[in-house]
Amino acid sequence: MTAVGIDAIEIWTGNLKLDLPGTFAPEKGEDPEKYTKGLGLNASSFPDSYEDIVTMGANAAHRLMERKGLEPDDIGRIDVATESSFDNSKPVSTYVAGCLEQVFDGDFHHANKGERKFACIAGTQSLDDAYNWIRAGRNRGRSALVIATDTALYARGDAGEATQGAGAVAMLISEEPDLVELSTEQGYGSADETDFLKPNQQFPSVDGKRSVQVYLARMREALEDYESVAGDVHPEDIAYIPFHTPFPGMVRKAGLLGYRHITRDTSIEDELADEIGRQPRREAFDDEAAFRDAVREYMDSLKETERYREWYDATIDPTLSISREVGNWYTGSVHVARASALKTALEQGRDLTGKTMIVGSYGSGAQAEIHAETVGDGWEAEIEALSVDDQLDARYDLSWEDYEKVHDVHNHEMDVDVEEFTAPDSEFVFDGWGRMGERQYRYVE
Amino acid sequence: MTAVGIDAIEIWTGNLKLDLPGTFAPEKGEDPEKYTKGLGLNASSFPDSYEDIVTMGANAAHRLMERKGLEPDDIGRIDVATESSFDNSKPVSTYVAGCLEQVFDGDFHHANKGERKFACIAGTQSLDDAYNWIRAGRNRGRSALVIATDTALYARGDAGEATQGAGAVAMLISEEPDLVELSTEQGYGSADETDFLKPNQQFPSVDGKRSVQVYLARMREALEDYESVAGDVHPEDIAYIPFHTPFPGMVRKAGLLGYRHITRDTSIEDELADEIGRQPRREAFDDEAAFRDAVREYMDSLKETERYREWYDATIDPTLSISREVGNWYTGSVHVARASALKTALEQGRDLTGKTMIVGSYGSGAQAEIHAETVGDGWEAEIEALSVDDQLDARYDLSWEDYEKVHDVHNHEMDVDVEEFTAPDSEFVFDGWGRMGERQYRYVE
Repeated sequence: MTAVGIDAIEIWTGNLKLDLPGTFAPEKGEDPEKYTKGLGLNASSFPDSYEDIVTMGANAAHRLMERKGLEPDDIGRIDVATESSFDNSKPVSTYVAGCLEQVFDGDFHHANKGERKFACIAGTQSLDDAYNWIRAGRNRGRSALVIATDTALYARGDAGEATQGAGAVAMLISEEPDLVELSTEQGYGSADETDFLKPNQQFPSVDGKRSVQVYLARMREALEDYESVAGDVHPEDIAYIPFHTPFPGMVRKAGLLGYRHITRDTSIEDELADEIGRQPRREAFDDEAAFRDAVREYMDSLKETERYREWYDATIDPTLSISREVGNWYTGSVHVARASALKTALEQGRDLTGKTMIVGSYGSGAQAEIHAETVGDGWEAEIEALSVDDQLDARYDLSWEDYEKVHDVHNHEMDVDVEEFTAPDSEFVFDGWGRMGERQYRYVE
Repeated sequence: MTAVGIDAIEIWTGNLKLDLPGTFAPEKGEDPEKYTKGLGLNASSFPDSYEDIVTMGANAAHRLMERKGLEPDDIGRIDVATESSFDNSKPVSTYVAGCLEQVFDGDFHHANKGERKFACIAGTQSLDDAYNWIRAGRNRGRSALVIATDTALYARGDAGEATQGAGAVAMLISEEPDLVELSTEQGYGSADETDFLKPNQQFPSVDGKRSVQVYLARMREALEDYESVAGDVHPEDIAYIPFHTPFPGMVRKAGLLGYRHITRDTSIEDELADEIGRQPRREAFDDEAAFRDAVREYMDSLKETERYREWYDATIDPTLSISREVGNWYTGSVHVARASALKTALEQGRDLTGKTMIVGSYGSGAQAEIHAETVGDGWEAEIEALSVDDQLDARYDLSWEDYEKVHDVHNHEMDVDVEEFTAPDSEFVFDGWGRMGERQYRYVE
């Protein structure tokens, strides 16, 4: 069976930065460590006044196509995943294609364009759709472009305000991919939940505590479902586990839960038993509450063991390096986590070719998905080509006053005009509204 | 290769009816034939105050699962296509699954749930995703549930008001399908167009004239793209051509365009030449305008020929029978057209097994898709099981005053409470809002 997966990725960050310990914390009268240690975040990426989900998505896709020497005729499918859409009918992918047609010869009239919505998991769903389209023999030799793009903004003063972010990840899905091959096997954990909603509103209503519980419950279900078809996951077989990262602190919880699950009934559990005992089993307890207390106690001990810390530092922590500097990008977040892991491996000179990653995607509402990825032999060149460090360094550092203004610019219910903070350079920019209320774009050389 | 396609369908209409010649025309001071002849519509389906995209979708899916004796464990994927969504993050499919879990034993935690948006074409895109998922070998023996559901309402007084509608189509996608097998081959015609938009608004902004042009231009591109991979389409090989039907008058134009295209360079063109001449060819004209005038003249003559009328009456007109009574259901519309065609065939006692249909889907913004379907040997039993005639007869016939009230109920910007016009019976109903602003539902026995 031909390998199908991600051949190339590009990351595009919003051009602004909100410093959490330096700018946000003092204004909120909070200890900076609430953000840097508690949430695990140093900064958020923010869109400048001329940026939105279309410009960020089109810029990531443009760079990807240029770098790979692709023309519109090489692309048979453009799917955009977002929960920041600004039209209830016309999909963002048509706007993105309109942008790309300004800079490429030829057009995308032959390409199936779509838009998926399911909180933060729609990027992975679109990746899966593209994989299936190729496997189904419908791609006619063409690749798919999957773009996860969001302006993940919260209402001013909302508890989620510190976890904001804005950026896009473009992925090229092809046969014989350079970066990673996707597994046929998938596991799902999906339930009708009300942890995070946007009922006829732009900014979310969030039940933070519930959202953490639902993330973990659905992720555990997805892992069990995955193992039921792919066999047990062993910690020593896995190079990295990129998780959806609303903030790194959430992934610390997910990593611990995952480790407990995949070490159960293994020699690792046996070896840890002297130090922290064996994992509690439900059947040994009279009621669910007592069992849960015992699990909590075991987890508290587990996370302090050297064995777990080493595993976490090697397998999970490397997935968080970019996220710490950009915040939550919703649909792009888990794909940023994958890129972080591979980038760390490159920096450390690790040989990853043929190694396995387990990817844990999540969207509130709620659904988790687990699949495996095998690193391809062109991964180093692909990751070397990323310009994400330069992009992060080049961001304009917002003052609090700047932040207040630019948040208003992106509020759909406000009509404010703010001078841009950065000068667009070789990128698509928002250029005002047309006569039907459509957003218009142009390329700035 | 195993056949993959639609195993079963169910249609659920909104429980109310707006009579266009009897109620709408007098109020607007218009000749009733403007609607019945011009648009080709007799009535619109409308949602009662307790109905919405979730109830209609869940009711169609419930009926389908009950009729086919399915349990949640038989379904591995639930995709909802809609452009009437009421949440910018949580997908409608999670609400639908929540409804179905009220009436079935077991749950859908293992099922991948999604939501697609691209005006009216997202239902077909979801069908294609489900097909690809099975073909990719990822379905683990399960089927997919694809639900196209919309409340296709326009602002009061808008030119599109007469084309409104509301309803859902649920489709079961399986291996070895009873109803129709889908072709691997697809043709696309897709461009960044501004014919119909909903920029941060519930009701559409429409450029009606442009929308007709774009529909035809994209459909022609899609047909040419389809023929480039599947070979030429011959009129005599095709039993029916269900098109997306915003109103039957649009399909009259599409049918004529399609016939001209598929008869070019055939014996049919030769046989018609004595009566109306041969089709104009671009190379015979000095400029585009003169060519277009000649084409228009040819089309005007073509549609008056007996040969064309017979073909239209046999191949296109049967796809419009339900649409004439329900209006536009957006994502469900082309799937209603397919059902109309098969229902007519059943009523006429035609043997359709193994026959081919060409399905022409369209979404503004804009994209057309063409694929072929082969009718399965269980089609008669499936179509016999449809209760659509009973449903249409049972609708409450709105007075003008009723219509004004119930339109307001469904306007997201209004907060009005209206007594329901019909008594829900064995169906899901909207039951108010929860503490997070989520919509809640219950099943009424």
